[in-house]
Amino acid sequence: MCAPQPARVFNETERQALYDVIFHRRDVRNEFLPDPVDPDVLDRILRAAHAAPSVGLSQPWNFILIRDPARRAEIRQAFLRANDEARAMFPEDRRGDYAALKLEGIATAPLNICVTCDRTRGGDVVLGRTHNPDMDIYSTVCAVQNLWLAARAEGIGIGWVSIFHESDLKRILGLPGHVTPVAYLCVGHVDMLFDRPELAVRRWADVAELDSVVMEESWT
Amino acid sequence: MCAPQPARVFNETERQALYDVIFHRRDVRNEFLPDPVDPDVLDRILRAAHAAPSVGLSQPWNFILIRDPARRAEIRQAFLRANDEARAMFPEDRRGDYAALKLEGIATAPLNICVTCDRTRGGDVVLGRTHNPDMDIYSTVCAVQNLWLAARAEGIGIGWVSIFHESDLKRILGLPGHVTPVAYLCVGHVDMLFDRPELAVRRWADVAELDSVVMEESWT
Repeated sequence: MCAPQPARVFNETERQALYDVIFHRRDVRNEFLPDPVDPDVLDRILRAAHAAPSVGLSQPWNFILIRDPARRAEIRQAFLRANDEARAMFPEDRRGDYAALKLEGIATAPLNICVTCDRTRGGDVVLGRTHNPDMDIYSTVCAVQNLWLAARAEGIGIGWVSIFHESDLKRILGLPGHVTPVAYLCVGHVDMLFDRPELAVRRWADVAELDSVVMEESWT
Repeated sequence: MCAPQPARVFNETERQALYDVIFHRRDVRNEFLPDPVDPDVLDRILRAAHAAPSVGLSQPWNFILIRDPARRAEIRQAFLRANDEARAMFPEDRRGDYAALKLEGIATAPLNICVTCDRTRGGDVVLGRTHNPDMDIYSTVCAVQNLWLAARAEGIGIGWVSIFHESDLKRILGLPGHVTPVAYLCVGHVDMLFDRPELAVRRWADVAELDSVVMEESWT
């Protein structure tokens, strides 16, 4: 249609469903079940990701589905090397706590998805990306968040693993130079989840009050 | 609780509500109604944003609520200057089409929200940010996407304006050096929306098929 149409209106039950998805979403490391993800479910989750906003409608994302155990083992080795380096960056008195945290489910989740950003998608000049060249990365992250929420509604947990040298991921997945790995996701069914963020449960960090991050008119 | 609990299960109706929110979400420029956003609605939307995943539970975002017409006029001027530069970056045969697109609702929407990222939040070393320092920006974008979906469910439209010099936004909003403006959002009630992305309706860009962005095991 060439003109705006009456907008879909959501009722209280539907709004609450969305809020429940948002508030019950977790970053999953330990709770993955081994059952494979049904292709229809995966298709719905990917369609939700693909419906994300994108700068200039460039849709710069790709979704690489990784199931091969040998490839996942190689990726897990890259994580373990980076994670050793990460642990050493913390003050000595936190390194024990850090080492006790499980931070990935690369091998235990039945599916991994690498969400990438093609920095050349949409051509030399992309509407909305003229003054902030990272808007394509931001679009890709919006796709990740859509994917995460859709997965939660489908009973699928997601764990975002960010402790990698980008060069390792690019090599193992054969990414060309113009393609950036934005998110490496572990994906699988879950039936048990923490009721608060796991890093808060494990007293690694505290959840901030909303009031502390809202400001009026300018930075204060 | 210190252990995982049985996970909230979503039924078919609830899942469909989420998918409808995701597929009926639009980037709004022209359709804002002048009615103010109810404080309770705004609170729910911001709580949804604040429930986004964040690297190391750092919650690096702030939400600056901007209503003052004079400040919004100044921000709109910064947009107009940048947008003139943007238009000139396109090949001559696209500049007319570009100029015909409305790309912001800064003054017509009753509320603007600048979502920022405090690059120092969480201290010198943040869990999960050790190898990709931009993970805090990614977390902030996840909050934007949560906000956008919650707004849609509440009948509130969002328009993301990205055509700014970052230095202009930082000056006008008084952002300190360590705070990055990630998203500048126009926010207001909507009752009419395009049923497809507006840039597709206006034939600026095409929507890609999902199949074209899904790969198996590695880049192909």
